Amino acid sequence: MTGTPVLGFAGGVLDRADQIRTNAQRLAESFADPRARLLVLDRLDPVLGEEDGLAWTVLPPGQDLGNFILLGVDQEGPAFVEIAGDIPHGGAFAPKVWEIAPLLQPQALALYGCARSLVDWHKRHGFCANCGAPTGVAKGGWSRLCPSCGAEHFPRVDPVTIMLAEHEGKILVGRQERFPPGRYSALAGFVEPGETIEEAVARELWEEAGIRTHSVRYVMSQPWPFPSSLMIACIGRTDDPALTLDLTELEDAKWVDLAGVRAALAGEADAPFRAPPPMAVAHWLLRHWVEEQG
Amino acid sequence: MTGTPVLGFAGGVLDRADQIRTNAQRLAESFADPRARLLVLDRLDPVLGEEDGLAWTVLPPGQDLGNFILLGVDQEGPAFVEIAGDIPHGGAFAPKVWEIAPLLQPQALALYGCARSLVDWHKRHGFCANCGAPTGVAKGGWSRLCPSCGAEHFPRVDPVTIMLAEHEGKILVGRQERFPPGRYSALAGFVEPGETIEEAVARELWEEAGIRTHSVRYVMSQPWPFPSSLMIACIGRTDDPALTLDLTELEDAKWVDLAGVRAALAGEADAPFRAPPPMAVAHWLLRHWVEEQG
Repeated sequence: MTGTPVLGFAGGVLDRADQIRTNAQRLAESFADPRARLLVLDRLDPVLGEEDGLAWTVLPPGQDLGNFILLGVDQEGPAFVEIAGDIPHGGAFAPKVWEIAPLLQPQALALYGCARSLVDWHKRHGFCANCGAPTGVAKGGWSRLCPSCGAEHFPRVDPVTIMLAEHEGKILVGRQERFPPGRYSALAGFVEPGETIEEAVARELWEEAGIRTHSVRYVMSQPWPFPSSLMIACIGRTDDPALTLDLTELEDAKWVDLAGVRAALAGEADAPFRAPPPMAVAHWLLRHWVEEQG
Repeated sequence: MTGTPVLGFAGGVLDRADQIRTNAQRLAESFADPRARLLVLDRLDPVLGEEDGLAWTVLPPGQDLGNFILLGVDQEGPAFVEIAGDIPHGGAFAPKVWEIAPLLQPQALALYGCARSLVDWHKRHGFCANCGAPTGVAKGGWSRLCPSCGAEHFPRVDPVTIMLAEHEGKILVGRQERFPPGRYSALAGFVEPGETIEEAVARELWEEAGIRTHSVRYVMSQPWPFPSSLMIACIGRTDDPALTLDLTELEDAKWVDLAGVRAALAGEADAPFRAPPPMAVAHWLLRHWVEEQG
């Protein structure tokens, strides 16, 4: 049950069973399935269990389907999670997740992340943004419907670009004030309406670091459930490395060469910065860049 | 002013000026700037004008900043759009856009798309999803704040995967019932919480066409303002081309070889399908695949 250093929250294996969500009869049958299991959460946090690492229980009889999300199905039957009562705003700081995540199988961490995003979304979206009326759970927890104006609302997935700029064999890493001491990571920011991924990367690097970027290339992606981001990892090139930092976003940023990035990833004591952990896509983005250098 | 066949809604050049949006004093100064201009819309539709193709007017004095969105700034000053009163749900069908778009400069179409997404979002998000209270415009139209519970809401950008599957020199295209006669395009679907882009591509191809896909690679992206999608175009490989179509999603799908895709892109009368127009990323995804074949 020990975790391997893989990208966090990716690699889910449960069949999401869209065809059951959207079929009222099949959904009711899944909910009544005696094999149906329930993911145990501590408010929004994971709870350690056996096998895959997560705690599961049986779905108690006599419950209201409208309080549950169908996470998906596998050979052992359908899996649900409850839209529980007393849940605070999820936000970004989740210390218990960071403690427990390394103890989970990767696919269990992915399932937990999906459940967390969905439960958190329901808790913060109980009312219709279009008319203000209370909404109800629909499609096995994958939508909310407004009985007043008829609007349907879907869980948010917010695309976020996370990027390295590169210049003559060095890459740019930055740190925010809230980071652990010595930690530097890739810069990041939300994609806005009306821009491509590549344009968002260039805009963020301009806004936060004052550099112009071109030749942006996509590397990989990751779901990040704090609360609902899709991290889109890219590398762009700049011709002028002079930095002008937005100090409301970044505490510091600096160019690091290949040897420095290698030392950081190896966790060496004299590395120029402390790298983000393998759970974060920024770690794999740094690794990807190192591998590209040959 | 004639349009060139480029990807639609991408290539905006206005500085989005995040540092003005988030600074109340600078925002008020921009709004009071005598050079401030206002994008003219017909409800959500574009209006033809001169120069870049879009119609612009001066920002009338004495207005309430809370009814306007700061689209950005350039050498000619700040550009705004009004969150107008009587606007229907945007949805996906926008015939006037398809008529006017080819007449616009690419950067004007990008600016219009951004404005459309934002205006439409405001119109459908006047209430707090967290508590149901009416919300107010903040940050120059790039956020809404709830005076009751304090929640801040940002414009949605919904990531959508749009993909070709490939198998032994052929690619898979499909059509929906609402398409024009003969039109086939790339399959597409929203990215869900808890999955990577690559996982979403594989899931959609499984759900809609019954094929298992691997080796998914990212190609390009596009903002698509109907109402707020970020199209993420990919190609994946399958080892078994046997199709099982979800007929609630697709009317038909078929494998097409290189000659067929070339004929479709050339608009030949006997092509095996009619390709989507250059405004759509699916067009460029087909072109990309053809170029890859050498």
